[in-house]
Amino acid sequence: MIHRKKAAPKPPMGWNSWDCYGAAVNEEILLQNAKFISENLLPFGWEYVVCDIQWYEPAAIDTNYNSFAPLCMDEFSRLMPAPNRFPSAAHGAGFTEIAGKIHDMGLKFGIHIMRGIPRQAVHQNTKIKGSNATAREIAAPYSICAWNTDMYGLDTGKEGAQAYYDSLFELYASWGVDFVKVDDICNTEFLPQNPYSAKKEIECIRRALDRCGRSMVLSLSPGPATIENAWHLAANADMWRMTGDFWDDWSKLNAMFRRCELWYSHVGNGCWPDCDMLPLGTLCVSDRKTGARPCRLTKDEQITLMNLWCIFRSPLMLGSETTKIDEFTISLLTNRQLLEVNQKGEAPHPVISEEREAVWLSNLPENRMAVALFNREDTPRKVEVRLEELGISGVKSMKEVHTKEKSCPSEKITAALRPHASALYILSI
Amino acid sequence: MIHRKKAAPKPPMGWNSWDCYGAAVNEEILLQNAKFISENLLPFGWEYVVCDIQWYEPAAIDTNYNSFAPLCMDEFSRLMPAPNRFPSAAHGAGFTEIAGKIHDMGLKFGIHIMRGIPRQAVHQNTKIKGSNATAREIAAPYSICAWNTDMYGLDTGKEGAQAYYDSLFELYASWGVDFVKVDDICNTEFLPQNPYSAKKEIECIRRALDRCGRSMVLSLSPGPATIENAWHLAANADMWRMTGDFWDDWSKLNAMFRRCELWYSHVGNGCWPDCDMLPLGTLCVSDRKTGARPCRLTKDEQITLMNLWCIFRSPLMLGSETTKIDEFTISLLTNRQLLEVNQKGEAPHPVISEEREAVWLSNLPENRMAVALFNREDTPRKVEVRLEELGISGVKSMKEVHTKEKSCPSEKITAALRPHASALYILSI
Amino acid sequence: MIHRKKAAPKPPMGWNSWDCYGAAVNEEILLQNAKFISENLLPFGWEYVVCDIQWYEPAAIDTNYNSFAPLCMDEFSRLMPAPNRFPSAAHGAGFTEIAGKIHDMGLKFGIHIMRGIPRQAVHQNTKIKGSNATAREIAAPYSICAWNTDMYGLDTGKEGAQAYYDSLFELYASWGVDFVKVDDICNTEFLPQNPYSAKKEIECIRRALDRCGRSMVLSLSPGPATIENAWHLAANADMWRMTGDFWDDWSKLNAMFRRCELWYSHVGNGCWPDCDMLPLGTLCVSDRKTGARPCRLTKDEQITLMNLWCIFRSPLMLGSETTKIDEFTISLLTNRQLLEVNQKGEAPHPVISEEREAVWLSNLPENRMAVALFNREDTPRKVEVRLEELGISGVKSMKEVHTKEKSCPSEKITAALRPHASALYILSI
Amino acid sequence: MIHRKKAAPKPPMGWNSWDCYGAAVNEEILLQNAKFISENLLPFGWEYVVCDIQWYEPAAIDTNYNSFAPLCMDEFSRLMPAPNRFPSAAHGAGFTEIAGKIHDMGLKFGIHIMRGIPRQAVHQNTKIKGSNATAREIAAPYSICAWNTDMYGLDTGKEGAQAYYDSLFELYASWGVDFVKVDDICNTEFLPQNPYSAKKEIECIRRALDRCGRSMVLSLSPGPATIENAWHLAANADMWRMTGDFWDDWSKLNAMFRRCELWYSHVGNGCWPDCDMLPLGTLCVSDRKTGARPCRLTKDEQITLMNLWCIFRSPLMLGSETTKIDEFTISLLTNRQLLEVNQKGEAPHPVISEEREAVWLSNLPENRMAVALFNREDTPRKVEVRLEELGISGVKSMKEVHTKEKSCPSEKITAALRPHASALYILSI
Repeated sequence: MIHRKKAAPKPPMGWNSWDCYGAAVNEEILLQNAKFISENLLPFGWEYVVCDIQWYEPAAIDTNYNSFAPLCMDEFSRLMPAPNRFPSAAHGAGFTEIAGKIHDMGLKFGIHIMRGIPRQAVHQNTKIKGSNATAREIAAPYSICAWNTDMYGLDTGKEGAQAYYDSLFELYASWGVDFVKVDDICNTEFLPQNPYSAKKEIECIRRALDRCGRSMVLSLSPGPATIENAWHLAANADMWRMTGDFWDDWSKLNAMFRRCELWYSHVGNGCWPDCDMLPLGTLCVSDRKTGARPCRLTKDEQITLMNLWCIFRSPLMLGSETTKIDEFTISLLTNRQLLEVNQKGEAPHPVISEEREAVWLSNLPENRMAVALFNREDTPRKVEVRLEELGISGVKSMKEVHTKEKSCPSEKITAALRPHASALYILSI
Repeated sequence: MIHRKKAAPKPPMGWNSWDCYGAAVNEEILLQNAKFISENLLPFGWEYVVCDIQWYEPAAIDTNYNSFAPLCMDEFSRLMPAPNRFPSAAHGAGFTEIAGKIHDMGLKFGIHIMRGIPRQAVHQNTKIKGSNATAREIAAPYSICAWNTDMYGLDTGKEGAQAYYDSLFELYASWGVDFVKVDDICNTEFLPQNPYSAKKEIECIRRALDRCGRSMVLSLSPGPATIENAWHLAANADMWRMTGDFWDDWSKLNAMFRRCELWYSHVGNGCWPDCDMLPLGTLCVSDRKTGARPCRLTKDEQITLMNLWCIFRSPLMLGSETTKIDEFTISLLTNRQLLEVNQKGEAPHPVISEEREAVWLSNLPENRMAVALFNREDTPRKVEVRLEELGISGVKSMKEVHTKEKSCPSEKITAALRPHASALYILSI
Repeated sequence: MIHRKKAAPKPPMGWNSWDCYGAAVNEEILLQNAKFISENLLPFGWEYVVCDIQWYEPAAIDTNYNSFAPLCMDEFSRLMPAPNRFPSAAHGAGFTEIAGKIHDMGLKFGIHIMRGIPRQAVHQNTKIKGSNATAREIAAPYSICAWNTDMYGLDTGKEGAQAYYDSLFELYASWGVDFVKVDDICNTEFLPQNPYSAKKEIECIRRALDRCGRSMVLSLSPGPATIENAWHLAANADMWRMTGDFWDDWSKLNAMFRRCELWYSHVGNGCWPDCDMLPLGTLCVSDRKTGARPCRLTKDEQITLMNLWCIFRSPLMLGSETTKIDEFTISLLTNRQLLEVNQKGEAPHPVISEEREAVWLSNLPENRMAVALFNREDTPRKVEVRLEELGISGVKSMKEVHTKEKSCPSEKITAALRPHASALYILSI
Repeated sequence: MIHRKKAAPKPPMGWNSWDCYGAAVNEEILLQNAKFISENLLPFGWEYVVCDIQWYEPAAIDTNYNSFAPLCMDEFSRLMPAPNRFPSAAHGAGFTEIAGKIHDMGLKFGIHIMRGIPRQAVHQNTKIKGSNATAREIAAPYSICAWNTDMYGLDTGKEGAQAYYDSLFELYASWGVDFVKVDDICNTEFLPQNPYSAKKEIECIRRALDRCGRSMVLSLSPGPATIENAWHLAANADMWRMTGDFWDDWSKLNAMFRRCELWYSHVGNGCWPDCDMLPLGTLCVSDRKTGARPCRLTKDEQITLMNLWCIFRSPLMLGSETTKIDEFTISLLTNRQLLEVNQKGEAPHPVISEEREAVWLSNLPENRMAVALFNREDTPRKVEVRLEELGISGVKSMKEVHTKEKSCPSEKITAALRPHASALYILSI
């Protein structure tokens, strides 16, 4: 057991602006979603409201990043919310007011940051709070993000690098931040320095967070995290991404089985390998190509998504514009039995994992067990698992969490599943 | 938790003939070592006596394999102990008498097998018990071991393949076997079929074992096992090798830290990722190049070996000719506090893992904790860990298991360690 | 310039039994095709008649290999033609009579062999001519072919290994063989020994060939050969495969552009990197799934195939059952201008090579030049090349070799090409 | 034959400032070396004087690069020589005066550039000559060099990118440049975009050079170039690096054999795969760690270096501070027979290439042949090659180019070679 971190005793549940607003999120959007969540989803455990990427970029208006765009920055090289998008942040107030309103709704507030220091600070050679070093001196000049031009990485060996991260978390604590998603840090396989390792930057961030005086969930993105670093992620972060960005596409969903198979043994004790967001409901509101659009997964696939995320115990971060959410999605997000599997499961693991089907098992309190059967094929398939494969000899009762159908198998559990469909059973044993 | 297998609730401890006798083990050797173990080591938990490779090869006299050597085989294509080396096996008696004698000493008996069916059976096209198929029909003609010519793999899709494995385990159960080490099955990265997978052969063996009516520990070799298959190994085997063959060489010992770091989350609940044998004491008795020779590790390195294997909870299989063992080695093998860490630790994991040093932690019953500090460098080094990194705020008492020195650190544990040395502390908290 | 080998001053042209008869070729088939070729194609340069794989396997009846089948073998472990398939080979006569008849038709005769020594010889431990070693002693027990069970590789470090290859080529010379295609030797990337190298076996074969007293073309299969070994192939062989087996499939044809791009600088001076056979006309006569069937490439693709093979200067080995060949295929095989590009081109190389199009150039005698324009897309495309990209400033006349259309471009050559189509121009400059 | 480029009919020979002055080269250094070369080496063919990296960086004083240093740049985003280091370049005069003086000595003048556009231009968003685009618009924001912070790559798909390269070569032509070494362009394996390709930037540069109205040798760095792109390099450049930076270290020299083996077929016809500079004589004058120091290779190794570079026909670019050069080095650089092998060899290729030894052959005019025998081992070794392996049956006379010893072998050439030593023979045949 890793004892150090206590920020997330259960898989975090909440909402994040990325899937619907990309780089264009603003104050109004955050608050309207927070209101909906507070009134409709908080009773079911959904509590985090996270403002995703580029809140410091005045010109961001959609899902694209403007290369080399001027950014809002304070005198200490720290990025600040763009007041044209977040009016309450004017005059250096930062996210204080927004965080306060969200807290008043009973929710928690999160922000996204990119690792490192702005390229703008480096080329302007601005100051670092708490250090005599300048931005130019602490930047790692060859450590850039592969898809966004905002930052250089930090050379953590340089005096001033820790001070910079300390100054960031001091600021975020003063704003009232409860959750920080750090980006461009979890998967280092595509970066130029071979072998570049984000380990030292992660450790600096952990240290800054521990020193800042406020508990925050630390979430690392994007994946795929490498399994060789699992112990280090477990020691430093609360959740970390196992894959690249997930979207509402069957091939990505189908690929998640393999990732869950690889990472299941690291789930629990405050560690949450992350399947990424739930792209359900209404998405891509600020995507200029598509405009607001519904989730492209079939209903069976959406259930499969929820079943896998829940039995694996992934964090659950909703991507939908909640004020435009549909009834079916709401029904998934408020299914208490399904969410219990996510929040209270113990030692989830695969029992069968093949190209065409998968069966997962997780223990539940009070002599209960969750068993999920998945059809990964494009055609209907009967999926079965023998009770002895589950390590049990009998079942007292069994109920499927979506259909609520009850049964009592004596030798094996069998599900006739449509393409890409699944069933999640709660067994009393 | 995986419930299916109960053969090894704790990491197996015992002796194996490989490190001292290679392919040349015989009845006398087995029994003399069993006697020593029974009288000297059994009280400390050492219980398995395992006969390693090529007991079916009449001409094997050292550590080499004779290519295409004629093998002892019954009418059903099953290899049998060579009577010239195992006299009690004459007339098809197999290992029955040896197993009986070992059982009478309070010990358990194990054997080694290669996956598959003898090439000799295939080219002679012999019979399969319980099937109309012949050896030629069930062989996988391109699945060969890369370092021994005895076998072809099985084509598990063929009728008769499961029957062959069933017939093997039926025979082993009749002999009284308690432990089976299956070789050429755990690491498939060098085999010609790309991607060949040993998964199906492992499943056939599991099924045959479950059906044979006798509980046996299933050990898979050689490594490195691939972490992607961890769930499958956990579901089917009791222990499996994380590396290639381990010998008494610092570079191999030093490399084990990385492997332990990769696999620690799969330790426990009847699953024992395996660091391989303990090449301590007197080794290589039948190696014609070296002759019997002592372990080449320094005493510090031997302690480090035991500390890592124990805190990680690896199986412990001694490689020494026990009748020629030295006092220092005996002292390591009978250190009850050290062995308790191996047998009763909970959730062992790395706290620090760098090129130059490592710190591991494992919980023990009764509010105790084991903490190991390792110096991986070729020069002396002070290794430290802060109590907060261990997730604790204070210590009631602390004792090093080898020196028995007591201390009571208030903020951090510090060890001044010689090159390649380590210290293992038991903390009361 | 490599001076040693003079067996193939130009790219070899001929016929091979594989594409139409697989493992089932026989004496009648060889002779009926030889007769057709002699009468119809020899005047255009087609001269080799090659008997492909498993002429020593009495039970071979189609395109499959029978695992572990008994093989016809002489007392010196040498495979011999199966008399039930090659009646003139009875009583140890081998291919003498067939070679003689083919020579009488003005043609040359070739055979296929697998590298190594029969597994059957190894398990029977038979003799080696000219050596006291036995088959078991010279076999490399872990060097097997990944798709055929007939052979083990040779351990060329063993006394007797060279003698075995010497005895083979002595035999083939006595039969009158002019061309030997050695299989399982050109690409070693999938073999178990890492890094296994076929280099030593190739050198043994070269040496045996040089000593046998008869000139033979040495052809190595299958590919992909590795470019790192190009110098070694050039030093030892006359032709070698750049790819795996080629069949009448656009994706394979399209992939050949990349291979030609990689290997073009090794073409010439008696060295012929090989694009593999021409699967044109009537194919798969003995394939029990398909039965005899026509080439599946469109006419445009067939022309593209011929244009690429010819301008690159690949060997040209026809795969069709010639007695059932169609007029269109015959027209391709007898186009003298096209074949001249193959037989007399100089320094062929790509000028443009992109995913969607390619342009190749080759010099011809008498101030002429061949230029091929290829459309690699699935849609029509206009492909162009400027004269300056060809290194010339003007053109006296130009003719397309298939359409015979003449033109005289002043600045660039332009071809409006159907999907997968191409044009091959002869320019006078 | 590639006809397009005629800038380097033979392997270029000259001097480059890198090995002795790193980033600190200046006007005085260039001219003093030019003077020495003109007076002492020009008669032997050494003609290029090349000013290597960062002549535009005012603060460069040694072998290091100053991250984010302000650079001398004109209004069109073009880097200009720093006047504090190159006084004649003041007032925008560039290298005109230096080039003129070097031309007056009978020599040719070369410069080094990094691919792309200055980061400084991008962050200042400066103008592009001949285009309305700005620096920010044509930069490829994720294409950075992995070891120098001066530039971003160009997005060649953007309007203005070709114009920028055109404006550079227009400027260089106006200065009188004869040789351009473009850096960070030849090996793209470590760059973040996967698969990034420098192909398009190379094509832009080729086009700009062809348009600029002055012939210049185009040299691409650093390696390793990938063999898959050989045709493209041959079509666009005159020379390109096969390896990373070469220094005076046996392991790097020994590794060059493999690279030569891979690339030999692309040598000739104006194409010169490049083994990199000759780190002979006095090196590292401006390296603050070492100070000026002699070459660390033994004399035998220096001869081996020259023998390999010469028989392979690599470009020869001297790295020594020539005014401090020793007699032995001078003797190597003025050995006319050795240099003839480099300048006039034909079709050089390996005859033997093994871990322990190598033999290379190259044809010379007038029925002569160069044969080099290399001992790659750390111990003395007798290296032999049979005349038939060289494709010849006899020798009229033979002379070693360094010792001038004559002999007349009848069957084989034998050299008893000290560790890492070699012999280069000229044969009359």
